[in-house]
Amino acid sequence: MDPIITATFLVSAPDQRGLVARLSGFFYELGLNILDASNHTDVHAEAGPRFFMRLVVDLGGLAAPEAARKLGGSAGRKALEASFELCAQLLGASWSVGYSDVLPRMALLVTKDPTCLYDLVLRQRSGELRCEIPVVISNHAALEPVAESFRIPFVALPVTPETKREQERQVVAELRRHHVDLVVLARYMQILSDELLREAPTVINIHHGFLPAFQGAKPYHQAHARGVKLIGATAHYATKDLDQGPIIEQDVARVSHEMGPDDLVRVGRDVERVVLARAVRAHLERRVIVEGRRTMVL
Amino acid sequence: MDPIITATFLVSAPDQRGLVARLSGFFYELGLNILDASNHTDVHAEAGPRFFMRLVVDLGGLAAPEAARKLGGSAGRKALEASFELCAQLLGASWSVGYSDVLPRMALLVTKDPTCLYDLVLRQRSGELRCEIPVVISNHAALEPVAESFRIPFVALPVTPETKREQERQVVAELRRHHVDLVVLARYMQILSDELLREAPTVINIHHGFLPAFQGAKPYHQAHARGVKLIGATAHYATKDLDQGPIIEQDVARVSHEMGPDDLVRVGRDVERVVLARAVRAHLERRVIVEGRRTMVL
Amino acid sequence: MDPIITATFLVSAPDQRGLVARLSGFFYELGLNILDASNHTDVHAEAGPRFFMRLVVDLGGLAAPEAARKLGGSAGRKALEASFELCAQLLGASWSVGYSDVLPRMALLVTKDPTCLYDLVLRQRSGELRCEIPVVISNHAALEPVAESFRIPFVALPVTPETKREQERQVVAELRRHHVDLVVLARYMQILSDELLREAPTVINIHHGFLPAFQGAKPYHQAHARGVKLIGATAHYATKDLDQGPIIEQDVARVSHEMGPDDLVRVGRDVERVVLARAVRAHLERRVIVEGRRTMVL
Amino acid sequence: MDPIITATFLVSAPDQRGLVARLSGFFYELGLNILDASNHTDVHAEAGPRFFMRLVVDLGGLAAPEAARKLGGSAGRKALEASFELCAQLLGASWSVGYSDVLPRMALLVTKDPTCLYDLVLRQRSGELRCEIPVVISNHAALEPVAESFRIPFVALPVTPETKREQERQVVAELRRHHVDLVVLARYMQILSDELLREAPTVINIHHGFLPAFQGAKPYHQAHARGVKLIGATAHYATKDLDQGPIIEQDVARVSHEMGPDDLVRVGRDVERVVLARAVRAHLERRVIVEGRRTMVL
Repeated sequence: MDPIITATFLVSAPDQRGLVARLSGFFYELGLNILDASNHTDVHAEAGPRFFMRLVVDLGGLAAPEAARKLGGSAGRKALEASFELCAQLLGASWSVGYSDVLPRMALLVTKDPTCLYDLVLRQRSGELRCEIPVVISNHAALEPVAESFRIPFVALPVTPETKREQERQVVAELRRHHVDLVVLARYMQILSDELLREAPTVINIHHGFLPAFQGAKPYHQAHARGVKLIGATAHYATKDLDQGPIIEQDVARVSHEMGPDDLVRVGRDVERVVLARAVRAHLERRVIVEGRRTMVL
Repeated sequence: MDPIITATFLVSAPDQRGLVARLSGFFYELGLNILDASNHTDVHAEAGPRFFMRLVVDLGGLAAPEAARKLGGSAGRKALEASFELCAQLLGASWSVGYSDVLPRMALLVTKDPTCLYDLVLRQRSGELRCEIPVVISNHAALEPVAESFRIPFVALPVTPETKREQERQVVAELRRHHVDLVVLARYMQILSDELLREAPTVINIHHGFLPAFQGAKPYHQAHARGVKLIGATAHYATKDLDQGPIIEQDVARVSHEMGPDDLVRVGRDVERVVLARAVRAHLERRVIVEGRRTMVL
Repeated sequence: MDPIITATFLVSAPDQRGLVARLSGFFYELGLNILDASNHTDVHAEAGPRFFMRLVVDLGGLAAPEAARKLGGSAGRKALEASFELCAQLLGASWSVGYSDVLPRMALLVTKDPTCLYDLVLRQRSGELRCEIPVVISNHAALEPVAESFRIPFVALPVTPETKREQERQVVAELRRHHVDLVVLARYMQILSDELLREAPTVINIHHGFLPAFQGAKPYHQAHARGVKLIGATAHYATKDLDQGPIIEQDVARVSHEMGPDDLVRVGRDVERVVLARAVRAHLERRVIVEGRRTMVL
Repeated sequence: MDPIITATFLVSAPDQRGLVARLSGFFYELGLNILDASNHTDVHAEAGPRFFMRLVVDLGGLAAPEAARKLGGSAGRKALEASFELCAQLLGASWSVGYSDVLPRMALLVTKDPTCLYDLVLRQRSGELRCEIPVVISNHAALEPVAESFRIPFVALPVTPETKREQERQVVAELRRHHVDLVVLARYMQILSDELLREAPTVINIHHGFLPAFQGAKPYHQAHARGVKLIGATAHYATKDLDQGPIIEQDVARVSHEMGPDDLVRVGRDVERVVLARAVRAHLERRVIVEGRRTMVL
C-alpha cells in the first residue's frame, strides 16, 4: 500500500548538549527527511542523565546523487549504517535500526490456551501487527488445528522435567531455522531456562498481576480470597529473573465480589490478551528502548 | 430534603433455602415496604456457601397500628430490632442496621497533606457523603487553618516514638468524646498500634499500590526504577496486619516513562483521593459487608 | 459440567408493597431455592415507579412430591410457568423465563470484517457465551472460510437496492429454519428494514460513538477532524429508530492527535468488539430488561 | 525550587524537509541545550501536511559570551525572540514562547458550584498548576467566602439579560486590570458573547458530554431517560461556536441503571473537574497547539 520505505533508528546516549540537533542534522545533511522524531531524557537514570531518541526517516532521499557522494560512494543501507555508527561513536551512543520493507519474524510459543494465539494471528492478518509469523511452537499438540487453519507451520515439542534441556535445544534450533527475530510467549506454560534466554532472540512474556501482588500457584484464587477489585496484566521482556524483566505495557480490569475464581480467570485472560497485543505492537514499531530495568516507549 | 426515613439492614448467614423469602417476608408482614434489596451468595467461602443481603426499608409503615400490634405493642426501632433479632437467630445470621436520620460521625486523621482532607470535607458539604465530621485529629499543626475554614474542631496531638502510646490514648479519648463511628486515615502518616485498633471504631485506610507490588520505603521511587506503566491505590479496613485488611475499593491511573518520581507521587495522590472517597461513600451507605479477608460491596 | 439446572425469571411490574416478598415467597412455597436475586425500582419512570427483578432458581426442588402437589399435579416447567403467570397477573407484572439446559440459538450477521465474528465464536467455544451458533448469514462471501473453520453453516445472501426486500425475506426464512432466538449484527453493513425487525427475533447491534457525537458517513474521519481524545462504542437493541434503541453497554478508548483516521478505525474496532461481546453476554445471561428506551442490566 | 530557567517554544509550519534539524540547530548554534523536544506531522491536515514542534530549552546558555555575539550583541530574551522570528519566517512557521520564571495569570469565572473552584485553587497551591490566580470573577456572591479563604480577590458582577453587555464589559475590564493570560470557566453558568471572546485572552471551558450526545436543557435527565452507561466531559477552548471549540481533553465515568438523574449529575461533576484540571495543566505547560478545529497535545 505505502510506497514510502522508512528506516527507524533507536538511539540511547549519555545526555549532552546538542543531541537532537546533531542526530537530526546527520539525516538532514544526507537529504533524508525525518518523518517522525521523539526523544526523552531520563534525568533519574543511575549513571547520570540519559538521552533516548526514535527517528523515522524517509529512505527516498538515498536516490539522490548527493546521498551517495556524502556516504562515500554508495548510497546503500550498509553505507548509511556505517556512517551513522561514526556519528554514534562521537556521542557515546548505542543504537539499532529497522527497515519498513523488512518484516520482523515472530515465533509464537503456546501450550493449550488458544486465546492469545488467535488474537495475535488475527491482528497480524488485519495489518495491525506488521510482522511475519513463520512458526508456532508448542509443548503440546492441542493447538495444531488452529495454526493449520491459518496455514502457519506448527511444531510440537513435548517436554518432561527429564527432557527439558533437550527440548529447549530443539526450540532454539527451530527459532534459528525460521530466522526468528522475536519470540512471544502466548501463554506458554513453561519456564524458560537461562540457557534458552541466552540463545534465543528477544522474548516477550505476559504475566498476570494484582494489587496487592500475589505470588506462587493459583494467583487468581488468592486474589479472590483477598477480594481484590481489580485484575491486571503485565507484558515484559523475559530475563533470567523470572517475571522481573523490563515492563512494556500494563493494564487492569474491574471485578466484583460476585465473581468466582473462574470469572477472575476469564477476565484476566481478556486483559492479558489486550496487554500482550499492545506490547508486541510497540516492539514491532520499534518504539521500545530498554535501559536497565526500565523501558521507554517512545 | 427527603422526608422518607429508611432503615438499612445488612445480613450475613450460612446459605439455606428460602433466605430471600424469609427476610423480605419479615418486613412484608410488618407492612414495611422494601425500597431496595440486593443479595449475593458466596459459594467459594471457606466454611461453606454464605449468603449476604442488604435491605433498605421505608419506616413509614411503622405508623400503621398493625405494626405496633405485630411488634408486641410498640412500633419503635428498639422493638423492630428485637423482632428482627429473633428472625436472625433462626437463620444463624449476623446483622446490623442504620437509620437514614441518624448520620454517622466520621473523624479524619491527617498529618500535613491537605488533599484528602479537602476532598472528603467538600464531598460531605455537597451532600455526597452523608455523615457528620465532628473532629479532625492530627499529629501536626499544619492543617489547622483548613479545618478552621470549614469550622471543624481541630485537635493537634504531636507524637514521638516515646510518646506514641500516650498520644494514641489521647486519640481514642477524642474519638469517644466526639462519639465517632468511623475513623478515616486521610494520609495520616503514622502506623496505628494494635491497641488503638482494638479501642477505636471502624478504621478505613488508603494505601498506594502497584503492579508489581513494591514494599518498604519510597515505593514511588521503586516503581519509577522498574518503569511501571500504572499506579494504583487501595482503600481497605485497617486491621492489625498492616495494609492487609479487607479491600473496599481499588483503582489505577496510567503513567509513562516521561514522568519522574515526583510526577508519580502527584498522580498517585489523585488516585488515592478518588479511591478513598468511593470507599468512604460505600461504607456510609452501608453497602459493605466484611467476611473474613474479603468485602462484599452490595 | 454443572449438574444444577436453573430457571432465570425476569419480572417487571408497577412498584407496590411486598413485591420482593411475594415473588420470592412464590418459589419458597414450591420448595425451589433462589440461587441469585437482584431487583431495582426505577422511581423516575414516566408512568410511575416501576419494579424490576431477576431471580435464578434451582429447579432441583421440582423433584420433591410437594412441588407436584402445589402445582396441581404436574411438577413440570409448563405447570410452573402457568402458576407463575397467575402470581404475575395479581401484580400486573410482565415476565419471561429461560432454562439453563436450553441454550439460546444465536445467528451472526456479517459482511466482510472478521473481527467480531472471530471474537464471538471464540468466546462461545471457550464457554464464556452460553449459546449455540447455528448459522452465520452474510451479504457477502468473504467470511465463508472463517465460518467453515469452525464448522458453522454459512449462508451468503447478496443484496442490491432492488433485491433488498427479497433478500430480507430470505434472511428471515433462514432465521426461522434455524430456530434463532437472537440475531447479532457483527458488523453487518446493511440497514435493516422495519419489516425485518418486526419479523426477526431480538436483534443486537454495535454502533460507534463519540464525544461529541458525529453523524452521517465517515464518522471516524469527522472525529479525527475535530480532534477527539476518546473513541467509543454502544451496543443496543435494534429498533426502527436507527441507532436509537435501548443501550445495553458502552465503553471508550483513548486516542491522540498522533493517530490518523485509519488508527481511529482500528482502535474503534477493538472497542466495538469488546462492547458487543459484553452486551451479548449480558443478554444471554438474561440480565437485561428493557423498559421503554432504557435497559436495566441486573 | 528549580534554578534552571527554561523557555518553551511551540512551532507550527507547513511540513518540509529538515524541520527538526533546522529548529534544533538554531538553539544548538546559540549554545542553548534542548531539554525536551517533541514533534508531530499531521499528514491529514486540510491545507497539506503540517508540522508541529514543542521545544524546551535551558536559557543558562545565554550567559556565555558566544550567545551575545551570535545574537548580535545582546543575549537577552528580546534578542533571542527576534532571532527566532527570522528563522521562523524562512520556514513559514508561526510560533510562541513562554518562560518558566514568568507565571501565567489565570482568572477563574464561577457561579455557585464550588467544585471546580476548589479543585483548581488546590492544585495551584500544591504546585501542580504553575500559574498565579489574581482574581475570581462571578455573576453571583455565593463563592466569595471560598475565594476569601484562599486570599484571592473576588469580584461579583451580577447579570441580567438587560445588563449582559455592560456586565461583560466589566468582566473584560477586570481581566485587563489583573493582566490575565488565561480565563477558565469553572462552571460559570453564562454564555459568553462573541464580543467578550474577541476581547478576552484565551478561554478554556468544560462541557458535559455523552454517548450518544444530548443537546439542550437538562442533558443529564435526557441521558438518564435513554439509559446511558457512560457519562463524559470535554474541555475545550471557547470559540464563538458554542461548545464546538478545539478539544483539549476528554474522559468518561461509568454509570448504571441504579443511578437517578441526581447521581448522574454528581458523577458528571467529578469527571468535569478532573478533565478541566488536566486541560488547564496541559495548557499551562504549553503542550497544546491549536490547528483549525483540532489540538495537538505534545
